[in-house]
Amino acid sequence: MSTRLQQLVERLGGQLIGDACTEVVGIAPLDSADASHVTFLSNPKLRAQAAQTKAAALILSPADDAAIGEAYNGVRIVTSNPYAYFARVAQFFAELAAIPVAPGIHPSASVHPDARIDPGAYIGPHVTIDASADIADGAVIDAGCFIGRGAKVGIRTHFFANVCFHAGCEIGERGIIHSGAVIGADGFGFANDKGEWVKIPQTGRVVIGNDVEIGASTTIDRGTLADTIIEDDVKLDNQIHIGHNCHIGAHTAMAGCVGVAGSAKIGKYCTFGGAAMVLGQLTIVDNVHISAASMVSRSILEPGHYTGFYPLAKNADWEKSAAIVRNLGTMREKIRELEKTIKTLTEKK
Amino acid sequence: MSTRLQQLVERLGGQLIGDACTEVVGIAPLDSADASHVTFLSNPKLRAQAAQTKAAALILSPADDAAIGEAYNGVRIVTSNPYAYFARVAQFFAELAAIPVAPGIHPSASVHPDARIDPGAYIGPHVTIDASADIADGAVIDAGCFIGRGAKVGIRTHFFANVCFHAGCEIGERGIIHSGAVIGADGFGFANDKGEWVKIPQTGRVVIGNDVEIGASTTIDRGTLADTIIEDDVKLDNQIHIGHNCHIGAHTAMAGCVGVAGSAKIGKYCTFGGAAMVLGQLTIVDNVHISAASMVSRSILEPGHYTGFYPLAKNADWEKSAAIVRNLGTMREKIRELEKTIKTLTEKK
Amino acid sequence: MSTRLQQLVERLGGQLIGDACTEVVGIAPLDSADASHVTFLSNPKLRAQAAQTKAAALILSPADDAAIGEAYNGVRIVTSNPYAYFARVAQFFAELAAIPVAPGIHPSASVHPDARIDPGAYIGPHVTIDASADIADGAVIDAGCFIGRGAKVGIRTHFFANVCFHAGCEIGERGIIHSGAVIGADGFGFANDKGEWVKIPQTGRVVIGNDVEIGASTTIDRGTLADTIIEDDVKLDNQIHIGHNCHIGAHTAMAGCVGVAGSAKIGKYCTFGGAAMVLGQLTIVDNVHISAASMVSRSILEPGHYTGFYPLAKNADWEKSAAIVRNLGTMREKIRELEKTIKTLTEKK
Repeated sequence: MSTRLQQLVERLGGQLIGDACTEVVGIAPLDSADASHVTFLSNPKLRAQAAQTKAAALILSPADDAAIGEAYNGVRIVTSNPYAYFARVAQFFAELAAIPVAPGIHPSASVHPDARIDPGAYIGPHVTIDASADIADGAVIDAGCFIGRGAKVGIRTHFFANVCFHAGCEIGERGIIHSGAVIGADGFGFANDKGEWVKIPQTGRVVIGNDVEIGASTTIDRGTLADTIIEDDVKLDNQIHIGHNCHIGAHTAMAGCVGVAGSAKIGKYCTFGGAAMVLGQLTIVDNVHISAASMVSRSILEPGHYTGFYPLAKNADWEKSAAIVRNLGTMREKIRELEKTIKTLTEKK
Repeated sequence: MSTRLQQLVERLGGQLIGDACTEVVGIAPLDSADASHVTFLSNPKLRAQAAQTKAAALILSPADDAAIGEAYNGVRIVTSNPYAYFARVAQFFAELAAIPVAPGIHPSASVHPDARIDPGAYIGPHVTIDASADIADGAVIDAGCFIGRGAKVGIRTHFFANVCFHAGCEIGERGIIHSGAVIGADGFGFANDKGEWVKIPQTGRVVIGNDVEIGASTTIDRGTLADTIIEDDVKLDNQIHIGHNCHIGAHTAMAGCVGVAGSAKIGKYCTFGGAAMVLGQLTIVDNVHISAASMVSRSILEPGHYTGFYPLAKNADWEKSAAIVRNLGTMREKIRELEKTIKTLTEKK
Repeated sequence: MSTRLQQLVERLGGQLIGDACTEVVGIAPLDSADASHVTFLSNPKLRAQAAQTKAAALILSPADDAAIGEAYNGVRIVTSNPYAYFARVAQFFAELAAIPVAPGIHPSASVHPDARIDPGAYIGPHVTIDASADIADGAVIDAGCFIGRGAKVGIRTHFFANVCFHAGCEIGERGIIHSGAVIGADGFGFANDKGEWVKIPQTGRVVIGNDVEIGASTTIDRGTLADTIIEDDVKLDNQIHIGHNCHIGAHTAMAGCVGVAGSAKIGKYCTFGGAAMVLGQLTIVDNVHISAASMVSRSILEPGHYTGFYPLAKNADWEKSAAIVRNLGTMREKIRELEKTIKTLTEKK
């Protein structure tokens, strides 16, 4: 299925320079694109490569267009954010290629008679839906998912195979939950009584906004008394753990393997690198960026970029530096003694 | 459903001061409780807030009662461990609110004819139970679970949806396994033969005691020849990995994302913060507490609290400190030279 | 079922010294083996123990045989790699004990009419197989698995229960994927447009070679435009995350909880300790070994052993060293001042 560039620009905006009737069939990187592709330049370091690309059309910024637009032979689409424009063009082609899902309930699914399934929703094979659950129009619940009692899934939200979405939890519209994710398992709450653990029932829910994407095997625990909250447009990668009663602000994104302990309050527009860890009951304000593999052990009340991981080295070098790190107190003591001795020497003069 | 305070105290003990006939419907935190709630004071810093709470009843310690008991208008329940008492009251109300599960096997479940399912057990939709498995009275196996050949599930143990519990594994009574957990996958065992990996069959089991709770997406591998052992009252949060042939002592608790490599032997009454890591074949004695994000690379033979993570800083500051950490050997050398020079200077005098 | 030692040596090679007709029923460690077992010595430190073992037969290297062969009473099997030999003997006994899986499609499975299931394959209960998928001879797809549209599973590859293998993905022969693993979920790709995230469709695949083993709850994301590639004989433990467009070279092994961000290119014959992390778009050459809990933040272009984690200490000691690490800049400054002062002092002389 080919598309005229004009169609893209009508839908997505941008200034088209060249033949609007040019037809393209998809998107490809600068170096592998051919005359049937659109490509994009989002990194100015690749200007020279972009000028030489064989793509039929090039998405680029005004500044890049000023620099290399003339040198490039194809059609240009000039836009302030070429990377976001590329994403939307890719969405356009992905929608064209998508195989439509016919609404309906697969005969092998096990749906409680008190559940409400919108006629426009799809329920796949071997799905289980418990009493009072509510699945909205356009929702897609793939094979093997479990939806607990009273849970709510919003319009056009898509659960991939084998997602568990437990009792009472809610997700808004246009969400995506990937396979193996578990939403609404019990939070980790125990009181200790003379060495033995007494379970604290976890009766809160997980409440998720619109446009949220949750990665494969990610787990978000239900709250103890109050709810765990994930605001709109939050994006969570795979293998993430979000503890009970956390609150994650809108537009915040976390890369794979991040862990957030219970009752952490994280602001909007934050980003977390892979395997970053956040202790419980902390506050992190808006616009905080945490590097991968860094441990947040105190609240962060000032926006900015924070890091904390031990630098990698050849093992032999690391062994030396680690041995010194263990004895930094001794090193500091030596410096103090040197300072004293020198002070004495200087004063003697 | 409301309950008289007298009923709570008869069941759970504690000294009731005030009207034992007061009725309550649930539990709530100090600041949001109203006249229908019980609340609790477990942190002396919140005494002032507790004195002002609108709750019908307040659970508190003798010391806190001496300090603010008179100032508070409602009924007091005095007990040595208010937090554990709160947990038990919450359990009481959660049981009242629980929807009972009717025993029986869902018609869509696939149960091998040689499996033994107690008539008091519940087997949910799309569950698979293999030959010779044994499911005890009161056990609840939710939708989509897999129970392997010869596996045993004890009385009143609850598997949430989509748990895998592989061949030969055993769990005792009153256990809870959350969704997505995988118990008894093969341990990671390979011999290397000129660069190629030769799989070592994993023929041990996972044997789990009573009162164990295992979090969502947590994995516990089966042993190579001997078994992997999880003793009574162990509590594991989500996304934890326990390698083959580990032995985890009773009452030990691990927060989310912890990893324990093969053949580690961990004592009783230990706690592990989130994302702590333990190398294989180590011994950790009883009563050891490991901070979050800390790496245990040697055996710990003395009880205590251990930590090892790089402190978080603004990225620019971290870059400076990390560069120095990489070159600590140089710094130590400089100090040694300074010491020599000063020694010479001093001796000259 | 007992086996003559001769049978083992005919199949696996090695030099047999003693009675080839001796019968054994299995393998056991040095200290627990009895007259019905084969055992092995792979660590020269255990020579004394090996000389005393009650096993019927001992697998050992020529050097160890020279040292203790005479002292040991049983049959010896001398081979250059006793540990690999042990693994193969264990495989031999595991195959003897294995309960054969009868090919066929369980009646509760949901198989699309356009899927191709080889008559020699086994499809378990509650499995879902989408259109155009291709399952080869001898493949075993256990209960609750999901196989997406057009996915391909090679000869004798085994998926344990509840694996998700998404549309278009491929795995070769003799592979093993453990329960809860998710292959081919969307990569984590978003463009940011004024604070909002625009999803980049993930239209690549995951392509996996022969003899690959993938652990429980491990996730491997599909590529954005190109594919994510896992070469032959790669071994991945549990709870690992491999981002989109990664390329992992043959014979590389990763222990549990490792995370690899998108587009990392990792060589052959590498090993990664548990919870090691690799940033995206890096290159790691062949024969690199990363210690557990270490963060790879730059490309590694030289083979070797690399480490980077903060050494564990008693919490009080860690607090001291961490405080100094935070202020290493100050310490360096003090040393510079000392050097200047001393230079002045020395020059004055």
